[in-house]
Amino acid sequence: MISSKLPKIFYGGDYNPEQWDKQTHQEDLGMFKQAGIDITTLNVFSWARNQPDEVTYHFEWLDELIDSLYESGIYTCLATSTAAHPAWMATRYPDILRTDKDGRKRKFGGRHNSCPNSPTYRKYSVEIARRLAERYKDHPAILVWHISNEYGGDCYCENCEKAFRVWLKQRYGTLDAVNTAWNTGFWGHTFYDWDEIVLPDNRSEEWGENSSSFQGISLDYSRFNSDSMLECYRLEYDAVRSVIPDALITTNLMGFYKPLDYFKWAKYMDIVSWDNYPGLDTPVSFTALAHDLMRGIKNGEPFMLMEQTPSQQNWQAYNSLKRPGVMRLWSYQAVAHGADTVMFFQLRRSAGACEKFHGAVIEHVGHTDTRVFREVSELGHELQQLGDQLLDSRIEARVAILFDWENWWAVEKSSGPTIALKYVEQIHKYYKAFYDRNVQVDIISVDSEFSHYDMILAPVLYMVKPGLAEKLEQFTSSGGTFVTTFFSGIVGESDLVTLGGYPGELRKLLGIWVEEIDALLPSMGNRIVMNNTLGDLSGDYKCGMLCDLLHTEGAEVLARYGEDFYQGMPVLTRNTFGQGEAWYIASDGEETFIAGLMKHLCDQKRIQPVLDTPVGVEAGCRVKDGRKFLFLLNHNAEAASVDLGNLNAEDMLSNNQVASSIEVPARSSILLSVK
Amino acid sequence: MISSKLPKIFYGGDYNPEQWDKQTHQEDLGMFKQAGIDITTLNVFSWARNQPDEVTYHFEWLDELIDSLYESGIYTCLATSTAAHPAWMATRYPDILRTDKDGRKRKFGGRHNSCPNSPTYRKYSVEIARRLAERYKDHPAILVWHISNEYGGDCYCENCEKAFRVWLKQRYGTLDAVNTAWNTGFWGHTFYDWDEIVLPDNRSEEWGENSSSFQGISLDYSRFNSDSMLECYRLEYDAVRSVIPDALITTNLMGFYKPLDYFKWAKYMDIVSWDNYPGLDTPVSFTALAHDLMRGIKNGEPFMLMEQTPSQQNWQAYNSLKRPGVMRLWSYQAVAHGADTVMFFQLRRSAGACEKFHGAVIEHVGHTDTRVFREVSELGHELQQLGDQLLDSRIEARVAILFDWENWWAVEKSSGPTIALKYVEQIHKYYKAFYDRNVQVDIISVDSEFSHYDMILAPVLYMVKPGLAEKLEQFTSSGGTFVTTFFSGIVGESDLVTLGGYPGELRKLLGIWVEEIDALLPSMGNRIVMNNTLGDLSGDYKCGMLCDLLHTEGAEVLARYGEDFYQGMPVLTRNTFGQGEAWYIASDGEETFIAGLMKHLCDQKRIQPVLDTPVGVEAGCRVKDGRKFLFLLNHNAEAASVDLGNLNAEDMLSNNQVASSIEVPARSSILLSVK
Amino acid sequence: MISSKLPKIFYGGDYNPEQWDKQTHQEDLGMFKQAGIDITTLNVFSWARNQPDEVTYHFEWLDELIDSLYESGIYTCLATSTAAHPAWMATRYPDILRTDKDGRKRKFGGRHNSCPNSPTYRKYSVEIARRLAERYKDHPAILVWHISNEYGGDCYCENCEKAFRVWLKQRYGTLDAVNTAWNTGFWGHTFYDWDEIVLPDNRSEEWGENSSSFQGISLDYSRFNSDSMLECYRLEYDAVRSVIPDALITTNLMGFYKPLDYFKWAKYMDIVSWDNYPGLDTPVSFTALAHDLMRGIKNGEPFMLMEQTPSQQNWQAYNSLKRPGVMRLWSYQAVAHGADTVMFFQLRRSAGACEKFHGAVIEHVGHTDTRVFREVSELGHELQQLGDQLLDSRIEARVAILFDWENWWAVEKSSGPTIALKYVEQIHKYYKAFYDRNVQVDIISVDSEFSHYDMILAPVLYMVKPGLAEKLEQFTSSGGTFVTTFFSGIVGESDLVTLGGYPGELRKLLGIWVEEIDALLPSMGNRIVMNNTLGDLSGDYKCGMLCDLLHTEGAEVLARYGEDFYQGMPVLTRNTFGQGEAWYIASDGEETFIAGLMKHLCDQKRIQPVLDTPVGVEAGCRVKDGRKFLFLLNHNAEAASVDLGNLNAEDMLSNNQVASSIEVPARSSILLSVK
Repeated sequence: MISSKLPKIFYGGDYNPEQWDKQTHQEDLGMFKQAGIDITTLNVFSWARNQPDEVTYHFEWLDELIDSLYESGIYTCLATSTAAHPAWMATRYPDILRTDKDGRKRKFGGRHNSCPNSPTYRKYSVEIARRLAERYKDHPAILVWHISNEYGGDCYCENCEKAFRVWLKQRYGTLDAVNTAWNTGFWGHTFYDWDEIVLPDNRSEEWGENSSSFQGISLDYSRFNSDSMLECYRLEYDAVRSVIPDALITTNLMGFYKPLDYFKWAKYMDIVSWDNYPGLDTPVSFTALAHDLMRGIKNGEPFMLMEQTPSQQNWQAYNSLKRPGVMRLWSYQAVAHGADTVMFFQLRRSAGACEKFHGAVIEHVGHTDTRVFREVSELGHELQQLGDQLLDSRIEARVAILFDWENWWAVEKSSGPTIALKYVEQIHKYYKAFYDRNVQVDIISVDSEFSHYDMILAPVLYMVKPGLAEKLEQFTSSGGTFVTTFFSGIVGESDLVTLGGYPGELRKLLGIWVEEIDALLPSMGNRIVMNNTLGDLSGDYKCGMLCDLLHTEGAEVLARYGEDFYQGMPVLTRNTFGQGEAWYIASDGEETFIAGLMKHLCDQKRIQPVLDTPVGVEAGCRVKDGRKFLFLLNHNAEAASVDLGNLNAEDMLSNNQVASSIEVPARSSILLSVK
Repeated sequence: MISSKLPKIFYGGDYNPEQWDKQTHQEDLGMFKQAGIDITTLNVFSWARNQPDEVTYHFEWLDELIDSLYESGIYTCLATSTAAHPAWMATRYPDILRTDKDGRKRKFGGRHNSCPNSPTYRKYSVEIARRLAERYKDHPAILVWHISNEYGGDCYCENCEKAFRVWLKQRYGTLDAVNTAWNTGFWGHTFYDWDEIVLPDNRSEEWGENSSSFQGISLDYSRFNSDSMLECYRLEYDAVRSVIPDALITTNLMGFYKPLDYFKWAKYMDIVSWDNYPGLDTPVSFTALAHDLMRGIKNGEPFMLMEQTPSQQNWQAYNSLKRPGVMRLWSYQAVAHGADTVMFFQLRRSAGACEKFHGAVIEHVGHTDTRVFREVSELGHELQQLGDQLLDSRIEARVAILFDWENWWAVEKSSGPTIALKYVEQIHKYYKAFYDRNVQVDIISVDSEFSHYDMILAPVLYMVKPGLAEKLEQFTSSGGTFVTTFFSGIVGESDLVTLGGYPGELRKLLGIWVEEIDALLPSMGNRIVMNNTLGDLSGDYKCGMLCDLLHTEGAEVLARYGEDFYQGMPVLTRNTFGQGEAWYIASDGEETFIAGLMKHLCDQKRIQPVLDTPVGVEAGCRVKDGRKFLFLLNHNAEAASVDLGNLNAEDMLSNNQVASSIEVPARSSILLSVK
Repeated sequence: MISSKLPKIFYGGDYNPEQWDKQTHQEDLGMFKQAGIDITTLNVFSWARNQPDEVTYHFEWLDELIDSLYESGIYTCLATSTAAHPAWMATRYPDILRTDKDGRKRKFGGRHNSCPNSPTYRKYSVEIARRLAERYKDHPAILVWHISNEYGGDCYCENCEKAFRVWLKQRYGTLDAVNTAWNTGFWGHTFYDWDEIVLPDNRSEEWGENSSSFQGISLDYSRFNSDSMLECYRLEYDAVRSVIPDALITTNLMGFYKPLDYFKWAKYMDIVSWDNYPGLDTPVSFTALAHDLMRGIKNGEPFMLMEQTPSQQNWQAYNSLKRPGVMRLWSYQAVAHGADTVMFFQLRRSAGACEKFHGAVIEHVGHTDTRVFREVSELGHELQQLGDQLLDSRIEARVAILFDWENWWAVEKSSGPTIALKYVEQIHKYYKAFYDRNVQVDIISVDSEFSHYDMILAPVLYMVKPGLAEKLEQFTSSGGTFVTTFFSGIVGESDLVTLGGYPGELRKLLGIWVEEIDALLPSMGNRIVMNNTLGDLSGDYKCGMLCDLLHTEGAEVLARYGEDFYQGMPVLTRNTFGQGEAWYIASDGEETFIAGLMKHLCDQKRIQPVLDTPVGVEAGCRVKDGRKFLFLLNHNAEAASVDLGNLNAEDMLSNNQVASSIEVPARSSILLSVK
């Protein structure tokens, strides 16, 4: 359980009192209580206020706030304030400023603005984290430590360049190994001295978002950049930890945020926390996937929903309001997928600068008589009612989807065969086939324990890291079902092609050889023609984008191409491997094909949905101590009737026993406790 | 009257003799006479020719030209030549070069190329202006002084950065005041020293065209940049003025040119002049609006049409020819809206560089036997015939639209709620409702005298400056009709939200409270459902983009939303305030809605059109000494018949009395004098 | 004949053994033999391997490779390895790094990366070329010397800036002449000192791809940049030549590559070679045109097809496979248009970096059992069978299209009248009218001998260089047919307008005066209304983009505009000039109009197609010693029947006599020898 001090789903969010006077603080406090808020995230962007120069620190204002909140029963998630450096630091120590990908040294401004390899940044960020820990180590109000905020971005300064060389020395040992890993024989790139290596930016190997002359260099830069930021996090983490051995420490992540390898980060977080900002047109299945990823990076442990907007955002093109009920619905969706907190950005809207049109619990009008405040209060009281029942309950999934940040980087930096291939789109496409049927899924890494699952999918597993093929073979031969797709098994961890025929290290497991890969123009397409050996999946389906021309080497052909010069070649194969099966999908199939195939595989493994629900109604389930918590989430604009069969369940808010059929109102949710 | 030396509508334009030899000058002179040209703008881009080094000046060529033109009866509008610095100045004094928004120091090239805060630029631009004034102070040919040319652009160099800090000291006095104005508590931006402040560019707070982390900083930079250029103008102005106390001094403006706050500039101009370059697809109503703006920035005084092309431009994507008659038609449109001159860029086409495909009175062929020359000559002789009759006549409008540059900057730098909102588009949308019916409109500033008008519109009055709300309340309570829209009353002059509920300082006047603002995706829409209390405006209309969710506080509801969860909430309200009414339009309505509502308001106030005309025929009116000049401008490709009723009018060119109905040929115009 | 050592169509391509170990070399060698490969291009990107520091050179690996290949009967095309500098050179001698158009100094990375005016680059590139020549001057394996690789790009560094001034001194002699050529009177740009001149980049005169304030400066920069690279080429050329007097030296060009004036380059090449990379959607007529250009730059001499992909590329958006047969078909298309070699990039796919997904003869699977290898082998054996029969045969064309790089630069840097005008598109549009009918065409330069032709077309001959008008008049008066279009005759070689009326120097020849040029919006159009004096070309045709408003001065009008205010003005004219005719097409006509007109002109001159073939079947002809080689190239996805009449021909591969009709399979080709 995340805290014994507050045994319930924490409810609250970011609060920036440094923008307001004391009278406003007092008014806010009353409103927080009224809304059932019991936690505020403080001190996120207060570095300049806390530290006006190198030697002076002012935390008195923070003392007073934390105390006065605590006296009203509101706890604190305490940030270290290092997410934006003070202006004076930028002026006096320019090493703290980033250099952008075009080689431009930045000036003071914005946030996410410190070079992760800046000695100044590291020195002063650790110092203030340490001082905060010393000051508040015994304060009973502090529930969570929040290091910095939304780490992100990148830097191409000279300090980073030097640090990159050191990172390479640690990774590779010798320059020979670097030259081999990067295939520098190509284009005469052989390095004879470490200092000849420069960062891959728009002045050297890269141009645009996804283009590089040397994928190997770019890939290592991405690793290095993620590691550099992680090192900043860890330095602050250690500073707090060394003072407070039992502190609960996190930093807020951002779901599918490409630059940082969160599987690696999560190892150093006591609890994962993240900020959920779907747009009006984000599919609910994608939000669900992001929650599952955030749960997955720390082996299924519950996470904190650290930020969401109560109403609207400011940074999208069109910042529509969350429709009535949606904030509550999406809050429960988060909980259904593993969140043990519901928190907002922000509790009070700022009056100036770029986030003043971002929604908040307390709007600019400054009182409680608003739709938003009413909805927040209602949810607040529900969460008080729910207490600690859900805390630390788990999702039990038999299906896992393998996700890998390094693969993401590598796939999208690839020059050829097609610019149309987007890794996360493919992950979502497969995920949705399960989501739509309420089959729960874990998102796992290459390092996860595979034996927990009956089925593992690895769409577009382009990069096969050392040992992974063996793990997958072991999983399959022990009876698991493994599914992968086109553009898999192509390279190793340095983006060097595994020679000898695609899909490289997966060739044996899949029992196929891919001779050629055709990339179609967007106007082109092909067809998947089932040969009807799978009774429940027959007929024709559209496919396109990439089409592998493959030969079986032991695998069985279940569908063939319907068009083009490779008409009749296999497009769907199944290889019996030990006790299990390894499936290969050679082209980008349409949604109904994937849905049908995934259902077939589930049925085969007797993997059941949580519940059969109407379209647009999501059903999720968390389990604790043998007790099941069932979430019915109606994302439709109309009410929906859900058939519960003879489920012995109780509505967790009304405490009423439910009948065999239940109506879920439009954009609403129902929580059931099942015995 | 702009000049007693030449008591008629000046006719001529930019002439660049420095690109041609003396024989050509002589040929040109003959052609100018033939075309009825009586003024040439000289010396616009001759700085390098005039001043080959720091101490040498050559004006003899200019003496000779001014003299020889004058001997032929052609006057001079004399530019100071400082619109592009000489190459030698750039090489020797790099402080004169601008630094662009990406932080790149520019090299010599182009025009608009001098840093406005460059000591070198200020020194030498003032020096040459002073020398020109000394040299020509007694020359009878000089009608107008033309400082520099089309001031514009921006600079982000170190000199500008230092000057920005000084400007801030003057505006705010203390750093505390700056921190407050910019809300630097947000994102830990507190400044402890003036020298910590940097310019907001792509290296600090901004990215792209309309994005900033700190709107307050960006807004002050826009003010500062406009002021810096204005200071350059004023320095030259003063240099000329100190030598020639009665000089008529101007600089040519560019209509809706965003970077410069022309209301502020016009205070320092003896007469406004501007360059009118509509494209083939620019609505004629937009050109009309631009003229009205140029008249409005100096309280309705007549202005100079300083530049227009006689045929085509070069810098548009597709530079179509002005169709036969269009040059004359648009010239009279300018006069109808307040122009007292008709001038061209340019009299002779240059042979090389980027404007060689820009139209000119004398084309590359070099003779007069061209369509363009014939049209120019015909108009020249008409203008000679008209003499001074129209000079200094005024437009008498009872409707005003409030326009504010700082509001423009603030609205479009806003992060949220929607990127679809464009301030000038909204101004034009409301203007067009009057233009289409020939109801004359003044464009006024927040500092204008409001009591001249019966109706004031202020679409998207996002920023309410100090005192403005009181002025509008005073105007309305005295019987005026005030109309404003969604996204009004949000912030004060520093872009800080006026707390306590939208529309802030306008809340009392409008009798409403806006609780939330919904931003729609482009694919979405809502409906304005009239409740039929306005007899002449009923039924349903489309609306979209932004939808305020508002509550009345005394205002009457005239229409409600037809869709979405705020169906039934007010979308059009009217608040009786003293003797007048304050209207609020809560969403972006379709054109017919605005047209209908504006007609209703005009009828209520008995505001009459100049004349009822067929679609595409514009009617304008100027008044002098009790005499009315009526302009009938047929923008259609077909002739149109206009009903004059029993108007006692005379055709000013034929001097014939006109009948009760008159035919205006296609793309032509008729000028009537009405007793 | 390109080499007596290997009297056949060379077959092979780029091989990068530096990326592979010795065992792989051995395996490759066997596969090369199997595929009929007899030439490898070596050492293209091996500079870093060859020269690890300033004084050390290692060529032993190359010795070994060349020897071992030669022992197996495989010859070498030896590159000088200077297409990408070593990293150590960049670190130690930063002058070798380019500065991009935004003024950014680049760091080490990519290829095409050396500043052409870098003293370091010139010193070391010449040195290694000389050393290679010394080492291999007597080696019997070397067939061709390949200087650097795909010269291209541009640089804006200080060394280039200084070199530009020197280049200008050589071209113009005096600063006065520069000021005149660039019309610096415009925008006060007069230069008083050579050192005031800066390069035209995004910091000075240019912005975006095709925009410049001073076309004259930009044009001279393009000339200078092409010359700078050419000088690098020539320095290496001379180094090899001085050691090996009879070396056959080339560098591989890139077809319509805009930055380099290949007509000028070809003068210094012993044989032209080029790299042909059409996309899946490139019209086959465009590929044909590119081949004809590459043949044309060296007066019709056969060229080397230096690179093509055997299967797919990596750098296009969608890298589709060449369909079965297409590689062979396009290889013979190259030969039909003058290629005497068929070579690939690349023989073996690299395992890492950005070209690993580029097709190769030996795929990543590493064996020969692939579709690609089979197709390569089949063609290899056909080429062995063909032997030297085709070598040095010529194309005999009676029609020529004039192409000029400087005109290309000038047309597309023009500011106005339209951004829609693309020079190469217009060239292709006219070329296609002949291609579609199998009428062979030469692409010629302004310096070519005109008297070889019956008809010369010069679409969009905007820039008329000194002497060209006279040459064209001479050609026409001697009986030739000359055809040109809108936007011709406008400027001289410095982009200064030829005053006195368009089309300037061509006015007399064409017998017309163009008074105005209208540019249409993309939504607009006009019509060409034939007046039916050309019996076979009548009716109406669409036209648009640009419309000249012209008056005849002796020319006959054959068609008039059907719309707009210039309805009835001439749009197609013919001027009898001496024994010949000069045609003018005043607007951008639709394809059927151009096809019809070109057919009319061919018929008039009795210019016959090679053969009448069905749509999609190309027929080409090469001639040697009175023997004709006829190529039938079926680009369709279906077989086609070609009527040969009573042609006495033999299939060159089967050696069978052909009947009067022959079936060409889908995507296939047939070679006939005709007596």
